[in-house]
Amino acid sequence: MYKLKCLKCGREVSPLSTSSVCPECHEPLFLDISLDKATTREGVSSLVPEELKKVTLGEGRTPLIDQGRFLFKLEFLNPTGSFKDRGAALTISRALMAGWKTVIEDSSGNAGIATAAYSARAGIKAKIYAPADAPQGKLRLIRAFGAELETVKTRDDAHRAALEDRSGVYIGHVVEPFFIEGMKDIALELVYSGKKFEAVVVPVASGTMFLGLYKGFEELVKLGIVSEIPTLVPVEACGYAKLSHHLKKVSIACEEGGKSLLADALRLTIVPRLHQITERVKKVSPYVVIVGDDCIGKAVRELYSMGLPVEPSSAAVYAAAKYVAKDFGGRVVVPLTGNGLKYVPTPSEPLDRYLYGGP
Amino acid sequence: MYKLKCLKCGREVSPLSTSSVCPECHEPLFLDISLDKATTREGVSSLVPEELKKVTLGEGRTPLIDQGRFLFKLEFLNPTGSFKDRGAALTISRALMAGWKTVIEDSSGNAGIATAAYSARAGIKAKIYAPADAPQGKLRLIRAFGAELETVKTRDDAHRAALEDRSGVYIGHVVEPFFIEGMKDIALELVYSGKKFEAVVVPVASGTMFLGLYKGFEELVKLGIVSEIPTLVPVEACGYAKLSHHLKKVSIACEEGGKSLLADALRLTIVPRLHQITERVKKVSPYVVIVGDDCIGKAVRELYSMGLPVEPSSAAVYAAAKYVAKDFGGRVVVPLTGNGLKYVPTPSEPLDRYLYGGP
Repeated sequence: MYKLKCLKCGREVSPLSTSSVCPECHEPLFLDISLDKATTREGVSSLVPEELKKVTLGEGRTPLIDQGRFLFKLEFLNPTGSFKDRGAALTISRALMAGWKTVIEDSSGNAGIATAAYSARAGIKAKIYAPADAPQGKLRLIRAFGAELETVKTRDDAHRAALEDRSGVYIGHVVEPFFIEGMKDIALELVYSGKKFEAVVVPVASGTMFLGLYKGFEELVKLGIVSEIPTLVPVEACGYAKLSHHLKKVSIACEEGGKSLLADALRLTIVPRLHQITERVKKVSPYVVIVGDDCIGKAVRELYSMGLPVEPSSAAVYAAAKYVAKDFGGRVVVPLTGNGLKYVPTPSEPLDRYLYGGP
Repeated sequence: MYKLKCLKCGREVSPLSTSSVCPECHEPLFLDISLDKATTREGVSSLVPEELKKVTLGEGRTPLIDQGRFLFKLEFLNPTGSFKDRGAALTISRALMAGWKTVIEDSSGNAGIATAAYSARAGIKAKIYAPADAPQGKLRLIRAFGAELETVKTRDDAHRAALEDRSGVYIGHVVEPFFIEGMKDIALELVYSGKKFEAVVVPVASGTMFLGLYKGFEELVKLGIVSEIPTLVPVEACGYAKLSHHLKKVSIACEEGGKSLLADALRLTIVPRLHQITERVKKVSPYVVIVGDDCIGKAVRELYSMGLPVEPSSAAVYAAAKYVAKDFGGRVVVPLTGNGLKYVPTPSEPLDRYLYGGP
């Protein structure tokens, strides 16, 4: 059986326990995977062992399409419309293995939708905490999958409330090790696409994609499939930057004191894995990029004009990538994380101003 | 160069002309593909020659997931959220090859969204005619991609108005041969999935998926990859049945005189390829299934409870598949055609009654 491991003190914990943090030093745990080179001689189809996959909706293997200097990884084409499906599939697999009946998640929307959908598929009850000002389409989707939705004031309030709820097992993606594990195959798919790139631009709220990509590339290095971890540049939204307190930063179109309204998926400021992210960023990126709403709005419009229906938080990543491309000679991978189909059907200021014009 | 061919009189037409119907007998044309066995010795990756693919958003290769007696083909995970992307990719490729600057389409929504997105990607102007009572989310998406949207009263009015518009080239999917060509690889993907099935249930409005699947399987038979075309059972919505005037029919939950409100993607009644569909259905299906709204609503709810965010028109297909499964011993393929993410974000009666309960 696989173990959860504390990378700080080395302590091991069973994934069938309800813990996701080290009982000694309270460090969020990682899944310890023993990579057996022998088993991968025929090629690696996944960095996640098959026996850990108990539930699927067809997540992963998303298209990678060319756009000049950029490679767009269409993560919004996952089953419920975001990359969170990759993490939720494995998290709910853990819940099935452990026999949990009710799971508790906090989310800005997308992770809640993914958790609700995979829980429904697995026959597990899901309770989701989300901010009341999340896009209404996202909240309606959580309920459509039969999950219990509790709305609170802010994204951070949702995290606190979920932690206090004792009616089920807390599986919040902000700490859950299996959720991070689910992200690793993005690295594998990028490498096996055969397309060359120099950097990946990665949105960071709770940091699951960043940590998962890092762990994925780290394992690909161990397997001898790639020689080093590529540059992974983190992106934050204006007014919600946490990493940038600790790192060199570049701000694009951040107005003084202006908090992003458009990047609703990037509004978490309580980040349990913050120092884990920070120490890795220092190894693989020259800086953090912080993006403001005017840049995001224009990038949404630009992406739609390329035929790509993304949500604004994804456009923040593209806006950052355009900056990053100036500093790198090679191509830049842009994960387009969330589907605009959740978002655009409902009128919403200030997005409509960018998409449809007007005052 | 590939030719468009009239299967009735044998006349050939260049795909670079603006015609999609035979100038002699007015029959909608098909693309004539010479399948070279020699080129497929290494395995067939697509039934569409690579040189015909001039624009892509990563369409196709959608997941196929197991659900008891059913295999769900997740066509709603195409780039703009429906199987129409497969057809639009090739149609807009034709427009690029022919050098058309403006294209005209009529649609209930999904084909309009797909045409708008692929036109945007190709730098071609798109003008879309759609019924004003289409889901507002779909209409907003057409505009988000920068297309010009003209709303008229009914789906049939949209078809008539588009045909009369002389400001560009009419590429309506209801006749366009390249659109049908784009559907063929669904057949290939089903066969190469390695999963056994006995029947495919296919929604029919203009019949592009049905004709494309039929042509795809026909070519797979010619290539010796499969021995025969499987059973392909067409599905229509209550109040909008055309095929069933000519064929044996089975009605499920159709109230007397009740027109479906939920199956908005199945409301076309002017079907230029109707007799082409009819003569093929006679060869591969014992009947047509007609589905009413109560069945559709319940099927939507059931699909969400399996974690599958589909639009109501897709649920009609699942409702039909449950009926069909009684008559066949093997597994039934259910193409889930359209994404509920376009639909569910906006409150809509009568769908909400099924999804969220209430009076």
